[in-house]
Amino acid sequence: MESVNIIKIGGAVVEDSSLRMQFLDSFTGLPGKKILVHGGGRTATALAGKLGIDTKMSGGRRITDRNMLEVVTMVYGGLVNKGIVSDLEKLGVKAVGITGADFSCIQAHKRPAGDVDFGYVGDIDKVDAKAVLSFLDMDAVPVIAPLSFSHEDGLLNTNADTIATEIAKSISALGDMFDVILSFCFEKPGVLSDPDNGDSVIPVIDMESYLLMKSEGIITGGMIPKLDNAFNAIRSGVSKVVITNASGLGKQKGTILV
Amino acid sequence: MESVNIIKIGGAVVEDSSLRMQFLDSFTGLPGKKILVHGGGRTATALAGKLGIDTKMSGGRRITDRNMLEVVTMVYGGLVNKGIVSDLEKLGVKAVGITGADFSCIQAHKRPAGDVDFGYVGDIDKVDAKAVLSFLDMDAVPVIAPLSFSHEDGLLNTNADTIATEIAKSISALGDMFDVILSFCFEKPGVLSDPDNGDSVIPVIDMESYLLMKSEGIITGGMIPKLDNAFNAIRSGVSKVVITNASGLGKQKGTILV
Repeated sequence: MESVNIIKIGGAVVEDSSLRMQFLDSFTGLPGKKILVHGGGRTATALAGKLGIDTKMSGGRRITDRNMLEVVTMVYGGLVNKGIVSDLEKLGVKAVGITGADFSCIQAHKRPAGDVDFGYVGDIDKVDAKAVLSFLDMDAVPVIAPLSFSHEDGLLNTNADTIATEIAKSISALGDMFDVILSFCFEKPGVLSDPDNGDSVIPVIDMESYLLMKSEGIITGGMIPKLDNAFNAIRSGVSKVVITNASGLGKQKGTILV
Repeated sequence: MESVNIIKIGGAVVEDSSLRMQFLDSFTGLPGKKILVHGGGRTATALAGKLGIDTKMSGGRRITDRNMLEVVTMVYGGLVNKGIVSDLEKLGVKAVGITGADFSCIQAHKRPAGDVDFGYVGDIDKVDAKAVLSFLDMDAVPVIAPLSFSHEDGLLNTNADTIATEIAKSISALGDMFDVILSFCFEKPGVLSDPDNGDSVIPVIDMESYLLMKSEGIITGGMIPKLDNAFNAIRSGVSKVVITNASGLGKQKGTILV
């Protein structure tokens, strides 16, 4: 069975030029079909600040009014996305930079206002896996910005971890065509049992040990939504989820979730 | 022979929301294969201004230092490009938003500094017509931002009229596969014999009459590089060049260059 690697790179990896080169080096060395999903939140916050637009967060997620939607469209859809495409093409890797609006490939609806009104934030309804795979058939790497699309509201801001997870699930749902591997590539070398010790990577976590470590307070904070996302993907047929850093990608390093 | 329509839309058409809807309405009604190239200079100048970055022009062309390159990457590659893709998808038209870096489809070199150093401005070496056509084979409209690509320097700023012309020439150069029609869609209804009179559209101009009208001072200013570009395309095998406005597109209105 052919593998499809879906790799999500987060803020620092995107925004620090030396980490980014390290990542791109590991990435280009990965065999097989590849899809890259990126963030860019720090750059968006920095640009918003220069434009006098306040960045408001709730539960770690960005509140996206009309002005902030323009900022993230420029930063995610333009600066970061096309910067990565350009870097990949410089390395001889065919790439195409898209959002959820291109081919309507990531369809969402605007999140209804509850206690918090997140504004132009999209909750994903459907990923068109075939549209995403059509770029792989052209031997290109789709580079995907964290913007989803609604036929009513247009572009919407959506968390990049969620986008990567939903893409992985949608390809798995096609049946036994592909062995889908989802990797989250961030600053740390994996899930750490001691957040201050980079050598404390937990090599393998299954659902049972995850629940135990969560109840014991070993896994906390921002790692919890990441792992919830990951186990959600595994329950939906994704073969393997890897949490690692720029240099560990494709080298059997980091934490493997099964 | 199948037609390919390459349509370039300029600043005001992109940036005025009522002209833009008028244009998209005409555009979606056009039969056959379509490629859309857009500008966005006024939006780039406005964003640069808000960021305290001076816009410097020379001979009507933007001087593009590192900061301005970031601005045009955000505005052309993100805000304008993905905004148009989203608008087209809302209208049920499959679209994909690309730059010259995607698939390295518009290869250029950084213009050497002469009397003026234009900075990160690209002069086009080669358009990969097959890469552009591959999106048409997917029944999608490629929406192309005015950014070219160099393997040495990455993304480069290139005039949108030039990009549209070079794409038209590259498809014509494939031989007798397509009837290539290049349309420049801007604020005015065509080439005017009296710039203050919108009813003075010159319906047809050939090379001989162009040279005459230029020598007589009937055609002046910014229209000259536009028409030079257009006749250059016709000499390279493009079937027809049309200069019209948002509402005239596809309706046998405007000026036809043969």
